[in-house]
Amino acid sequence: METARQELQKVAKRIQPHIHRTPVLTSRLINEIAGAELFFKCENFQRMGAFKMRGATNAILNLSADKQKKGVVTHSSGNFAQALSLAAKSLNVPAYIVMPDSAPEVKKAAVRTYGGQITECPSTLKDREETANRIQEETGATFIHPSNDLDVILGQGTAALELLEDHPDLEILVSPVGGGGLIAGAALAAKYFGKDCKCIGGEPAEADDAWRSLKSGKIETNETANTIADGLKTQLGDQNFPIILEHVEEIIRVSEDDIKEALRLIWERMKIIVEPSSAVALAAVLKEKERFRNKKVGILISGGNVDFSRLPF
Amino acid sequence: METARQELQKVAKRIQPHIHRTPVLTSRLINEIAGAELFFKCENFQRMGAFKMRGATNAILNLSADKQKKGVVTHSSGNFAQALSLAAKSLNVPAYIVMPDSAPEVKKAAVRTYGGQITECPSTLKDREETANRIQEETGATFIHPSNDLDVILGQGTAALELLEDHPDLEILVSPVGGGGLIAGAALAAKYFGKDCKCIGGEPAEADDAWRSLKSGKIETNETANTIADGLKTQLGDQNFPIILEHVEEIIRVSEDDIKEALRLIWERMKIIVEPSSAVALAAVLKEKERFRNKKVGILISGGNVDFSRLPF
Repeated sequence: METARQELQKVAKRIQPHIHRTPVLTSRLINEIAGAELFFKCENFQRMGAFKMRGATNAILNLSADKQKKGVVTHSSGNFAQALSLAAKSLNVPAYIVMPDSAPEVKKAAVRTYGGQITECPSTLKDREETANRIQEETGATFIHPSNDLDVILGQGTAALELLEDHPDLEILVSPVGGGGLIAGAALAAKYFGKDCKCIGGEPAEADDAWRSLKSGKIETNETANTIADGLKTQLGDQNFPIILEHVEEIIRVSEDDIKEALRLIWERMKIIVEPSSAVALAAVLKEKERFRNKKVGILISGGNVDFSRLPF
Repeated sequence: METARQELQKVAKRIQPHIHRTPVLTSRLINEIAGAELFFKCENFQRMGAFKMRGATNAILNLSADKQKKGVVTHSSGNFAQALSLAAKSLNVPAYIVMPDSAPEVKKAAVRTYGGQITECPSTLKDREETANRIQEETGATFIHPSNDLDVILGQGTAALELLEDHPDLEILVSPVGGGGLIAGAALAAKYFGKDCKCIGGEPAEADDAWRSLKSGKIETNETANTIADGLKTQLGDQNFPIILEHVEEIIRVSEDDIKEALRLIWERMKIIVEPSSAVALAAVLKEKERFRNKKVGILISGGNVDFSRLPF
């Protein structure tokens, strides 16, 4: 499957003028605690503060000029809404964002700042899908899914690709698992650009749909999702699940306390702001130390958009 | 005065193996807000989390082997206590730290982690000085002042020196003002390594002793110091004041709200953890925008040691 390799390289080249190449940081102290050599790919320093900028940019660039003119639409209340808005604005494309009317005002304001046009609707999935459909019909805009879209997946995969370019000898790559876009892209990058590099997921035990999906072989859902890792409450989709099933070695579940401890460690010791979802990958490494002992491990820090009024410490 | 120039270079070379060369970060968005081009020298990424590591290391390295063997002593409840402890530990030198018995347990624990030997005493200056004197007599250790010591001042100055090496065309360098060690060192670096680069201080209006000292021409004190910039409550000393008087262009006073706003901007937009004292320099730039309009401005981010249980937002 040489094509996936070439495809990832093509995507990296395509989005490169529109995104930051983010730095890779290390911490002697966290290495000592983990008993491994960790390399943090800092997508919290990405434009808009998260890796989602990569996938959004790629999805828009991949549209025809005619489709670009008509715009893009998505439903999201999180980072993808902001990412699609900013990517669209940078590329001079209209962005229509469907948000639940219950979404925090601060998130709506952020989308507006980035130029997204918000349509509010009731917060059920059915309402959001219907609203997005209506906008598509009215405007001719193209729907872009936050995680279950191959262009988005390949875009997200470029974060892992860059990390492997900087550190080709990584033995394991650890990614948080939410909707599955980031880990599916990372798994492809590890497979096609690593030297026998495994891809492992970290997931909150409170929203362990992906862990159960790997067990059962079909896409599972969460009945509840009481986790501070609010970017990881979503479930896998039919585009990313087959990739995850084939290329992800294992998913490690972590408790809320594990997440908070890892979050605090990153903030206190690395002096960088990362969102709780980002700490889940480090939490997985610290939970199963034997699995990672003395290994070179890449860790995807997914983003840094934090609501400071709701800190867990 | 070629000697100060040579002296600074010698110090930079001497401490270089023992400290990090910290990165210089920029933010497009904060540039837009400020109307200037800002370069942040990130000493929050320094070892131990603050620039104080530089001065402490230089002061110890400058002692004779015999004096090093007998150790160093200081009284401090802040970053300098931790810096002297870690610098001493790295250089295999005993460090005696006098701390008020009222100091937070978390600060005492940090000093112990870095190998400092704590002696507690009542929190008056008189008690602290007497305790430090007694330890000097008993152990033969050398007293190192956190800011009013020429070796410490020159050590701190290397942060500005590195910034000017990276960006030789800076027109203004802005430093927070507390005990005066950092700004005195920065002013010397600007004078001897800048191209007509001015040095300006930022100071909390609630602890504006340095601003008043520049006006009156003598060292003033603070009767109260109700500021979240807790590293800036201290006053100038006879070693650093003459340097500040001669080489610092101006001190800009900022309100507590100015500091909080600048702090939030750095956390939210740059995604880095800096302590409130560090935000005072940016607050000064944002307060007097006309003074900095369209200029290339270096900003010293002094440190990133934050008590997360006492955040102002």
